[in-house]
Amino acid sequence: MARYLLTIEYVGTGFHGFQRQQGIDTVQGALEQALGRFTGEEPRVMGSGRTDAGVHARAQAAAFDLREELECAAVMTSLNALLPNSISVTEVRRVSETFDPRRDALWREYRYFILNRPAPSALLAGFSFHVPRELDFEAMQRACGVFAGERDFSGFRVKGGAGETSTVRRVMECEAVRPGGELVCVRVKANAFLYRMVRMMAGAVLAAGSGRITTLEIEARLSGGSGPATDTLPSHGLFLWRVAYPPDVYVD
Amino acid sequence: MARYLLTIEYVGTGFHGFQRQQGIDTVQGALEQALGRFTGEEPRVMGSGRTDAGVHARAQAAAFDLREELECAAVMTSLNALLPNSISVTEVRRVSETFDPRRDALWREYRYFILNRPAPSALLAGFSFHVPRELDFEAMQRACGVFAGERDFSGFRVKGGAGETSTVRRVMECEAVRPGGELVCVRVKANAFLYRMVRMMAGAVLAAGSGRITTLEIEARLSGGSGPATDTLPSHGLFLWRVAYPPDVYVD
Repeated sequence: MARYLLTIEYVGTGFHGFQRQQGIDTVQGALEQALGRFTGEEPRVMGSGRTDAGVHARAQAAAFDLREELECAAVMTSLNALLPNSISVTEVRRVSETFDPRRDALWREYRYFILNRPAPSALLAGFSFHVPRELDFEAMQRACGVFAGERDFSGFRVKGGAGETSTVRRVMECEAVRPGGELVCVRVKANAFLYRMVRMMAGAVLAAGSGRITTLEIEARLSGGSGPATDTLPSHGLFLWRVAYPPDVYVD
Repeated sequence: MARYLLTIEYVGTGFHGFQRQQGIDTVQGALEQALGRFTGEEPRVMGSGRTDAGVHARAQAAAFDLREELECAAVMTSLNALLPNSISVTEVRRVSETFDPRRDALWREYRYFILNRPAPSALLAGFSFHVPRELDFEAMQRACGVFAGERDFSGFRVKGGAGETSTVRRVMECEAVRPGGELVCVRVKANAFLYRMVRMMAGAVLAAGSGRITTLEIEARLSGGSGPATDTLPSHGLFLWRVAYPPDVYVD
């Protein structure tokens, strides 16, 4: 038996999220179908975590087993030939037989893109949230700074995530950056995320940029207090950017 | 009467090009329909030029007349509310009543994007041409250099363009650049373009990067000679990037 780790890019628009659901288009379902077709086996794909309907991925991670050992390059080429254009496999590596893509992840990074200009953008419409009013970028940067560290995110999640016993998460990095072209990007790196956590954090950061919540009020909500309600931003602005693993999981 | 100049962004994928055709989705058709709905007039939209089916635009230019004068900001907001997400109006300005978006253009810039890496990219699939084999970037840069100046592009067009009496065009700039993320971009700025000219130029530049044509052979083709045939690259990697007008066309 051989275990493989896939790095996967996808446009979330046409999928009802990552996780397999009977009779519904999902990323996991498409991967399992393509794997089944070229291997003749029926491998189950394990993701590093779910992404919601409509969320994109630049580098999601997923693992599967094959009874027959195959070259990584051949697995990549065969999968890309069978997958729809909206999913691509960008890397295939052998990993140890005990590897678990969810448990072994050191951290995940998400990026939320806001297009901040009067006019909407046809080219970016499916990949960013359009905010026509002027935003206070410095206030957004300050708001991001509040999330760093080991914090209780019970005020920044929607109940419904599977197996969430604790609401404490360790945020290694959180910042607002301007990647160019009138975009504002909220970048968050954490050991793990709660259900809808990034979209709620981005909503609070956007509210800070609009003067509707203060840094102190965000801080109070992280400490269990209440305060002004803020929006959960829509899924089409969100990208799962990277999932990191320790080097010793790879077998090469 | 008032004449307006629109700057338009669009995803070409769902359109059969810019130019109006009865019963078929085109950018011009969508703009005229939206304008008709909110003005109650039946304005005809004049483009700076056509783009082919599947070609994208970051900043196409088009003009139309209204009997009733309207605020530019109101025209932009109303149009964007009525247009599909795949078209957006990013600027509206008043221009002189003699303005002609095709004749008055100083130059047009097109950019062709090639994704050069082994794996395809789901996120960029609709916006770039995937070339998995390694390319010689310096050879592509040298090939681009050959096109600069006033040249006869009869070897770099497909016959069928409307009103093409001469095949001489003045190329102000042509270069290959690496905008990041394994992309190679062929950027061309010229007074005007022949039918499929950029896609044929990009095909020759790509062939140079693959060692299938030399800079001298491209030079020979520009001088009326023949040589190795090269591909016309597909439309989904091409963007109409900008159309420039002299400042005196604007009325403010």
